Parts: sequence; structure tokens; C-alpha cells
Amino acid sequence: MLNFQFFMPTRLIFGPGSLAQLGDTAHLPKGEKAMIFIGASGAMVQNGYLARVQGLLAEQGVRSVVYDKVRPNPESAQVEEAAQTCRELGVDFLVGLGGGSTIDTAKAVALLATNPGSYWDYMQGGSGGKMETEHPGLPLVAIPTTAGTGTEADPWTVITKTGSQEKIGFGTDQTFPALSIVDPELMVSLSPRQTAYTGMDAFFHAVESYLNTRRSPMNDMLAMEAVNLIGLYLPDAVADGANMEARTALAWASTAAGICETIGGCISHHSLEHALSGFNPDLPHGAGLVLLAPHYFKRLGEMAPQRFSDLALALGDEEAQQRPEADGPALFLAQLVELIQSVGLADEKLTDYGFSEDQADALAQNAFENMGKLFPVTPAKMSHDDVAGIFRAAINA
Amino acid sequence: MLNFQFFMPTRLIFGPGSLAQLGDTAHLPKGEKAMIFIGASGAMVQNGYLARVQGLLAEQGVRSVVYDKVRPNPESAQVEEAAQTCRELGVDFLVGLGGGSTIDTAKAVALLATNPGSYWDYMQGGSGGKMETEHPGLPLVAIPTTAGTGTEADPWTVITKTGSQEKIGFGTDQTFPALSIVDPELMVSLSPRQTAYTGMDAFFHAVESYLNTRRSPMNDMLAMEAVNLIGLYLPDAVADGANMEARTALAWASTAAGICETIGGCISHHSLEHALSGFNPDLPHGAGLVLLAPHYFKRLGEMAPQRFSDLALALGDEEAQQRPEADGPALFLAQLVELIQSVGLADEKLTDYGFSEDQADALAQNAFENMGKLFPVTPAKMSHDDVAGIFRAAINA
Ligand SMILES: [Fe+2]
Ligand SMILES: [Fe+2]
Repeated sequence: MLNFQFFMPTRLIFGPGSLAQLGDTAHLPKGEKAMIFIGASGAMVQNGYLARVQGLLAEQGVRSVVYDKVRPNPESAQVEEAAQTCRELGVDFLVGLGGGSTIDTAKAVALLATNPGSYWDYMQGGSGGKMETEHPGLPLVAIPTTAGTGTEADPWTVITKTGSQEKIGFGTDQTFPALSIVDPELMVSLSPRQTAYTGMDAFFHAVESYLNTRRSPMNDMLAMEAVNLIGLYLPDAVADGANMEARTALAWASTAAGICETIGGCISHHSLEHALSGFNPDLPHGAGLVLLAPHYFKRLGEMAPQRFSDLALALGDEEAQQRPEADGPALFLAQLVELIQSVGLADEKLTDYGFSEDQADALAQNAFENMGKLFPVTPAKMSHDDVAGIFRAAINA
Repeated sequence: MLNFQFFMPTRLIFGPGSLAQLGDTAHLPKGEKAMIFIGASGAMVQNGYLARVQGLLAEQGVRSVVYDKVRPNPESAQVEEAAQTCRELGVDFLVGLGGGSTIDTAKAVALLATNPGSYWDYMQGGSGGKMETEHPGLPLVAIPTTAGTGTEADPWTVITKTGSQEKIGFGTDQTFPALSIVDPELMVSLSPRQTAYTGMDAFFHAVESYLNTRRSPMNDMLAMEAVNLIGLYLPDAVADGANMEARTALAWASTAAGICETIGGCISHHSLEHALSGFNPDLPHGAGLVLLAPHYFKRLGEMAPQRFSDLALALGDEEAQQRPEADGPALFLAQLVELIQSVGLADEKLTDYGFSEDQADALAQNAFENMGKLFPVTPAKMSHDDVAGIFRAAINA
């Protein structure tokens, strides 16, 4: 029988031009001092987004300081440094402006700014201290500039422990953004390759939540919508970044898939990817997912073929649901390979990122140790050997 | 372009048997003393639901007092009386156990218990004082025993001003339930006629939110799902109240339609119904909606035929979307009339509730005065004469 929970307390303001609402929304967190998080690349400064956000906050009487050192695959030492600065300056709320790394850093800092100890004290996997936070975090405003992570509509933050290969997702009821402004106009400047990486990340959030054993009708409908929209529009946005129809559809798909991460959640495909980018922080998360996917979903489909034909249908195979259930995985994989080609990612290789077959066992061990909690919600029980075999196939591909 | 907001901070726990989670959920509002609201009919006592809820609260160390005077079409004097009792007893949170009237009363009391003055001081329509509340309300746990109102997933509470014909919907960010437990097993004892009334209320929440000019993809998908499920399962639940598959589908449809009331919202069909049940509090809300609907949607369809064919499709007319847009309203109305018959409500008449044609103008005036805010989101501009004409047609039917 149908049993589920739903809890997604973030206020979403969505639409082209919606960033302007930051200047007059009554739903800004209370306070006079904000810390804005941006990436170290300088893109938010160069394209003028940081100045705009600062100006809009000023219209609401909020002064802001900027933390501009966020790098891809953010690390715990930075979280601790920024949290200390927040405490010293008496910051009232945080703003995350950028991609997943930036907003995730802001989420982690929000929690640590009001709680004692180190960030890893609160991690529940790997070498984490498994402590519970005592206080709610500082309120967070998320302003994504990519359509992928879904972090604007979920509680998750992914941080790597400094000096280790532990990359762990964490979240509580306290780590949802208070307010997320999703403005597709901020996404037009993203490069074709970054568009493809981030779009495919959103795609897998939707796919995985649909296959997750924790089912609910709201998750199903949002996941189907996101898979369908990404299949339709991601090739267009990669081909022409200024296509606002495509950017808007993808922004909604990514947010919808973020809600899916909240309700249904990812399965072990994401555990395997975290191991890869834990080993090599230069591997983009979306690239890692794409490189694993044909091998991961082939193995999963052999063990649990259910629901794959729905995913093939959402990707445009209108005959998929008339075929036997056992054919579903192959039909989905055919659509997936075509999508990967049409977004220009068919040329990637794990060996180009320095991976070799002899790491397969260590990667499998890492996946179970750090992100083991996604295995029990995966619709088939995967052994260490299953997972090592997937890594081996992906590296040899 | 696509622009919308989403904010629905209630935690939903859904499923057959889910009431048991009241005894161990970590998400119960904090505190030791609760006030439980139930209807004056005694049904919650007789069927044992009250004792069960009290027992489950006791497992969490919560003592409870019971307010058992809620009647259909609840009035402001009761809200004020119960709020005063809450203050005197130092109640920490409220529990609404029952149908829409009960949960709405608890919502209104939750807000007034922490704010000064009378309830009508805060109403924004009619003779309301248009004041803003200063304090958040007491937390509320909603436990619906009907599938209809959707109040478990929206901020709205509908209260009639004592001694008047003003029946006004009100809600703020503070009036969402903190926790809603939606257990279809609590709905099996509902009579066929109450099942039909409440189910049709949920049906119109979904239909109206789909036609509302305030559009969003999440509203669209939830509304289509609710319309489809109610069309499929409401006749079954009316025929056999113990059909758990039907009860579960309807409970989800009603909650989904409640989320639609939060995101999209009702249109003026609900304004007209509030006028009817403001004039005669013995008219069930669902009956009023059903009696107005063929006339209201006929007139609306003449003025704005858009999207009606989608509703006809969701009700099973698979050819609807191949027909010209102008045919949509007639196709929807044909499905609607069939649904009303199949749930046993085709024998109702407004004249049986004491209405006469000469009240049409006064009813139209009431609809604009008290629930005028739903007219600007209705997809056609309706004049006083349009609305009076709809009342006249419905009363003469
Ligand atoms: Fe991801
Ligand atoms: Fe209603």
C-alpha cells in the first residue's frame, strides 16, 4: 500500500527575471548582515551577478560580505574557516550564488556557524563523528546559476573531508534553504560542457529517485517530468546557451529533480560517483555519473528491470511500455546513450581522468564506506563484487 | 514565460495505518499539553478515533484536553472561546481530528491563541478588520478523517462570522499545519453521501486550480492527477466505503488537490459556494459546489474555453484533445454530469435547501464582497449580472 512522507519547506521563487524579487520579497531572512558565497573562478564577479545580488540586498537594508574561495568538490577546512568568520562578524544569514559546490558550501557553513566543533563531527558516514547538531543553522538563500544540482530544493550538501578521499552527502531538516530564487536568465552564460554536466546530474537525480525503493506519487510525477524535459531540452541548451525556452525548462527540471532528491532520493549510482570524484577531485560530478551510467544501469537492469520502461517512455520511446518488462533496461540504455551523444559527452573517458582498472576494488570499498546508505534503497542488492565489476567495466570502456 | 512560487512547509505523513506514527514520530510539535479538536456529532468518540489519538499522544508524554463543540460551517465565536481556553490552560499545540470544519477551527484557534483581539480583526474581506497577525500561531497537527477539504496541505481556514452571512477563507504562511497525518483507514467509516460531498470538494479544488490564471507545472501535474483519480475512484468509494484501494487513492487525490489550493488556488466557483452556505449553513459545501458547477462552468466555458479539454481528458475522454478548443467546456461538462450521477448526487436541488430565485442578486453581492479575491484569478472577468445569472440558473435547475 501507498506510504510516504513529504517535507520540503523551502520557499521557491521561479522564473526568468525572478532574481529582481530579491530586492523586494518579504520572505528574505531577517537580519542586516549577509555573507555571500561565490566560486573562486571569478565568474560571478565578471558577469556582474555578485554586484547585482549585493545591490538587491542593499535595497532591503542588508550589508554583505563575500566569501569567494569556493572550489569544485568543496572541502571541510573551508567550511570551518567560513563558519568561524560568520561567528566573528555576526552574520545573520547566508546567500549561496553559483553552482552546487557554492550552495553546498553555504549550506554546510550555515549549520556549522551555529554549532560547536568541526564539520566532520556531524557526518554520519566514513570517519564522521556521527554527532547530532544542537541548533538550527543560519538561514540560507540559494541562487543557483546552473541547472543540475537541485540543492535549491533539497537538504543535501556534499563536502569532501580535507586531506582524505571521503566525499559525503549530509542533510537534516535544518539544511533546506529558507528561500531559493531560480532564475534561468542566470544560466545562459554557462558553457556547453558545463551545461551538459550539470543537466545530466539533474537527469540522474530524477532517474534514480524514480527507481528508488522509497516510492511516492509526487516523486513519480516530478521525476517523469524532469526526465522528459531534460531529454527534450538539454541538447538544445548545449547547442545554444541563449535559448531561454530550453534554459527555463531545464531550470524547472533541475528543481523538480531536487524535490525528488528530497522525497525519493538517489540510489547507489551516486555512491559510486562520489567514490570517483573523491579519488580525483578534478572529475566533474556530472562527468562521473555519465561515465558510470551505461555500466551501472546495465547491471542494475539485469538484477531489477522494473520501471525502466517508464523511463524509456519519458525519453521518447513510445513503444517501450508495450514491450516485456525485461526489455525495459535495454530500451532505457539505448535512449541514454543517444542522450549522452546529443549533449556532446560521448568522448569522455575515465582513463583520461587518470583512473585505472586496479583501483576498482578500492573504489567499491569507498562507495560502501562513505555513501553506503544509498545501497539499501537501490532496487537490487549489490555486492562488493557487483560494484567493483561496474567500476572495472566503466574504466575499461 | 514560466513564473511561479512554491511554498508548502507542512510535513505530510501519508498511508494506510500511518496514524500509528503519531505515537513515535520525532516530528510532533514540542510540548506537553495539546488541545484536540473534534466535531460535536460524537463520531470521533464513537468510532474510537479520539481515544486512539489521546493514547498515541500519551506515548509521547503529551496530555490532552478535548474541544468537542465543532459544528459544520464553524463560527468565529467558537474560535474565540477555544482560543481563550488555550491561553488559560497553557496549551502547547493543537490537534485537528476530523473533517474540514474541525481542522479549520483548529487552524483559526492556533492563530488567535497567540494574537490579541477578535478573530474577525484579522479577516481581509467583508467586515474584517484587515489587521496583520503579530505572532506565529501555535503548531497544529492535522488528522483528516475525510478526503475532501485539502486543509491538511494548505494554509486556508474557512470560518463564518457569528450572527452574519459572511463566510471567509483566510490563511497566511503561519496557518499551514506543522504536521499532517493522512491515514485512509480513518476514512472508511464515512457515509456514501459524505464521501461524495467531500470527494467532489477535492475534485473542484483540482479543477479550479487547473483553470486558475496563476499557473505552474507542479500545480498542473497534481491537479491532473487528482482529477483523474477522483473520476476513477470516487464512484467506487461511494459504492463500497471499505474499498481501501479507492480510499487510499482519494486520500492522496484530496491531499494533492490541497497542495493545488496552496500553489494555484480556487477560482470564483468557490466564492459562489461560500455565498450559498453563508446564506444556509445546512447546505454542505460539497453539495453547494455540485449544484453550482454545471451552470458555473458552462458560463465560464463560454467566456474562456481554454484548458477544459485537458480536464475532459483527465476524466477519461481520450478524444478531447483532438477536438477544437471551443468544444472543451461541453466535453468537460458531459464528464462532470456523469460523475455527479455516478456518485449519487444527481438528486440534489437548491430549492430543497430553501433557496429561491429572488435571492440571486443578494447571493452575487455576497460572493463579491466576501470572496472577491478569487475573481481576478478566474480566467474570465465575470460581472455581477454573470454571477447572478449563474445563481438563477442553478436555483431554477
Ligand atoms: Fe548529483
Ligand atoms: Fe472547497
